[in-house]
Amino acid sequence: MIHKILIANRGEIAVRVIRACRDLHLKSVAIYTKPDKASLHVRIADEAYEIGEHPMHGYLDAKRIVEVAKHCGADAIHPGYGFLSENYEFAKEVEDAGLIFIGPKADVIRKMGNKNIARYLMRKNGIPVVPGTETLNNETLETIKRYASQIGYPVILKASGGGGGRGIREVHKEADLEGLLDDCKREAKAFFNNDEVFMEKLILNPRHIEFQILGDNYGNIIHLLERDCSIQRRHQKIIEIAPSPTMSENLRKTMGVTAVAAAKAVNYTSVGTVEFLLDDYNNFYFMEMNTRIQVEHGVTEEITGIDLIVRQIRIAAGEILDIEQSDIKSQGFAIEARIVAEDAAKNFTPALGKVTGYYPALGPSVRVDSHLYKDYNIPPFYDSLLAKLMVRSTSYDLAVNKLERALEEFAIEGICTTIPFLLAISRSREFRRGFFDTSYTDRHLPYLREEMKKYKDKANKFSQEDDLKAVVIEAIKRLKEDRAKNE
Amino acid sequence: MIHKILIANRGEIAVRVIRACRDLHLKSVAIYTKPDKASLHVRIADEAYEIGEHPMHGYLDAKRIVEVAKHCGADAIHPGYGFLSENYEFAKEVEDAGLIFIGPKADVIRKMGNKNIARYLMRKNGIPVVPGTETLNNETLETIKRYASQIGYPVILKASGGGGGRGIREVHKEADLEGLLDDCKREAKAFFNNDEVFMEKLILNPRHIEFQILGDNYGNIIHLLERDCSIQRRHQKIIEIAPSPTMSENLRKTMGVTAVAAAKAVNYTSVGTVEFLLDDYNNFYFMEMNTRIQVEHGVTEEITGIDLIVRQIRIAAGEILDIEQSDIKSQGFAIEARIVAEDAAKNFTPALGKVTGYYPALGPSVRVDSHLYKDYNIPPFYDSLLAKLMVRSTSYDLAVNKLERALEEFAIEGICTTIPFLLAISRSREFRRGFFDTSYTDRHLPYLREEMKKYKDKANKFSQEDDLKAVVIEAIKRLKEDRAKNE
Repeated sequence: MIHKILIANRGEIAVRVIRACRDLHLKSVAIYTKPDKASLHVRIADEAYEIGEHPMHGYLDAKRIVEVAKHCGADAIHPGYGFLSENYEFAKEVEDAGLIFIGPKADVIRKMGNKNIARYLMRKNGIPVVPGTETLNNETLETIKRYASQIGYPVILKASGGGGGRGIREVHKEADLEGLLDDCKREAKAFFNNDEVFMEKLILNPRHIEFQILGDNYGNIIHLLERDCSIQRRHQKIIEIAPSPTMSENLRKTMGVTAVAAAKAVNYTSVGTVEFLLDDYNNFYFMEMNTRIQVEHGVTEEITGIDLIVRQIRIAAGEILDIEQSDIKSQGFAIEARIVAEDAAKNFTPALGKVTGYYPALGPSVRVDSHLYKDYNIPPFYDSLLAKLMVRSTSYDLAVNKLERALEEFAIEGICTTIPFLLAISRSREFRRGFFDTSYTDRHLPYLREEMKKYKDKANKFSQEDDLKAVVIEAIKRLKEDRAKNE
Repeated sequence: MIHKILIANRGEIAVRVIRACRDLHLKSVAIYTKPDKASLHVRIADEAYEIGEHPMHGYLDAKRIVEVAKHCGADAIHPGYGFLSENYEFAKEVEDAGLIFIGPKADVIRKMGNKNIARYLMRKNGIPVVPGTETLNNETLETIKRYASQIGYPVILKASGGGGGRGIREVHKEADLEGLLDDCKREAKAFFNNDEVFMEKLILNPRHIEFQILGDNYGNIIHLLERDCSIQRRHQKIIEIAPSPTMSENLRKTMGVTAVAAAKAVNYTSVGTVEFLLDDYNNFYFMEMNTRIQVEHGVTEEITGIDLIVRQIRIAAGEILDIEQSDIKSQGFAIEARIVAEDAAKNFTPALGKVTGYYPALGPSVRVDSHLYKDYNIPPFYDSLLAKLMVRSTSYDLAVNKLERALEEFAIEGICTTIPFLLAISRSREFRRGFFDTSYTDRHLPYLREEMKKYKDKANKFSQEDDLKAVVIEAIKRLKEDRAKNE
């Protein structure tokens, strides 16, 4: 039913999806903007089409993308994450053109994409949500202040159309409310073209726990266990672990059942993620559902042996889900570290440049998903993610060791990366013991900064000494003499 | 009990063992000969010691290696494969020095290392062996000819002290016997310093099926399923698959029980491999037991989730095996392709040179074990293995697709490799259907040669065009204008 897939994305996720296409012997079509022409996804796809000179517009141009798909005879479109992946109008456009959108139905994206509607649906279906307000539309500042005191400070302001940690402001006292509200609306407008916000109680130092959902078009929905994504900085995930190293089997069961109920509330199909906040007292709250593949999907693949992109494609093609909840058992622990182009020592300022050397970590139970290659000039327009490093082992302890080893091996030359920062985390006692929540990086920044200084730059570590040539020539001579003697 | 391990080897297996040490937070010690100084194992070990100017002697110098281990405070030695790994005198030397030899007991190595003794032990213990003779010592040519006609041509001559496909000659008619016997003895002497040979019936076009054995020091022995290593060329394995894509569950059970019985016959400890020939009629014959880690151990790790090097170390340290036979279930299929430095198009002539570009295949369920890095000058003295590419999937079909994809991605620039040959195999109908035995490559060489011609050299495929710089600068200018307009 699906023979050729257009990938409406770029970077590592486009590479990931193209690899899945090749694994299934399906044709893959890349799109790219002119300045993104040298990107790896363009090079490994079966076909590639330029979609404009502007570095961003093309990846956001729903009509154009659908046109290209029809033109080249693709029968399905995979949106990846970011860009148009959670844009229900795009999904609808694809459906209306008679193509398969590899994701949930447009209407489900719309409902879950609006945080306010999602909260309403969850409350109606018995899913616990964080105490808070509906969308704040025309309320006066006074009314909003009253809401905040009723909920009790600290509160958090969130963009209704938001996601990915953008359009979020924490408010710790009434005096800050007005300014932060304006701020939040401005960011919401800029990122999501929608300045609606709502208010929630700020759950202090929670764990971020999310469940991977897999549903088919026939009402079968299961979860593939949870990921602990508490290691964050400014609401951006840094390290993700599956399953959570500290969760009891009881709580896993309860949260898993709740996550599936949340997905069933909207007749969810395809892969998706139900995100919860979990407090110190085992209370958990629905945060949002992401109606797309996540950056961190790989750790779930590592512990379950299920290829989520392959499943996503097969479900979109109409396959019935042939796995049951009871089949899902974790095969050890997996950890992902996101390596991004930032100088962690200089307050995480963005880094740019050319990859002059690229040595991904290799070996057993190490996986690297990345669009880097040696001599790649990183275009300055896109996400700063360089590579996703994943490791797997039988225990959380051993997985952390493996993460440390793999980070030590990983070398990207020419650009500043967060490898030293990730290495510092992987060596910290709290991380190794599973003692962390979303405040981990803020809390331990001084320690992490000190630890990062110990990192030795491995640039040029692999350059071979010239004098070795003479030694090898000498050795060859000697071997020949040996041989002559023996004859 | 073990804190620091000296790795008495080089190349990919040394890198593999050092990675396992790091994963376990154990110290690792590399040894190297002077011309091998730039090798990766030297660079990633915690310590490294030179053991002489001669390119080979050092890796074979048992006394010197034990001295280095004692000098640096190592408490154990890992022999890898090849070199001294199946030399019982080395194992004894290590034991006598009060160090732990990470492998079976010296006496077990001795028994299984002598093919003649091994055959005797197997026959005594009810294990089926190939019809054949004891060691041919002082028999006249006439007697040997009589043996051969009793067994029935074709027969095969094998070095008693052999392994790794060396010291083997097939004899199809009496007229060839004398010459091939001399040949075989000469090769046996050269490779194993022992010119003893014996004769067996040549099983025509068998499958090579081997079972991975894992035993502890307390009599617990299990097998970790089988590997099908039938894809060979001149008795050298090229591609290995776990489990066998065509074996029935019944036969698997029977052969597995037999493999464990073979290991129990010598009270086997550590990891080891029992190799069988399997004919078209489901008759199988013990061939030999390798008392060391195998090159192809990774495919077993991929399907069982068990790290064999880690287990080997733990068992050597005295741990009890905490897995039972009934715990071992295959998680899909794994395939390994050995990428070697040979020009397959030119009759597999050895290739040498400098790695000017190195792009290992990456992504989900792809594993690369290798000692290569960009700018590595491959020393001309050692094994031609460049990299072991492993893939895993839920079915054999999908695993073959993934192998094909990964081989297409894999690029090693500067040296001729067997990637085109491996790719041709992965695309052949017989391979994809599991229709193969040890005669596969000989039988299909004309087809494989044609297929190889289609391979497009990917050299320089990643070099970025210079004109892109102007495009990026233009795009930045445009973005700045956009921003100015919005403000």
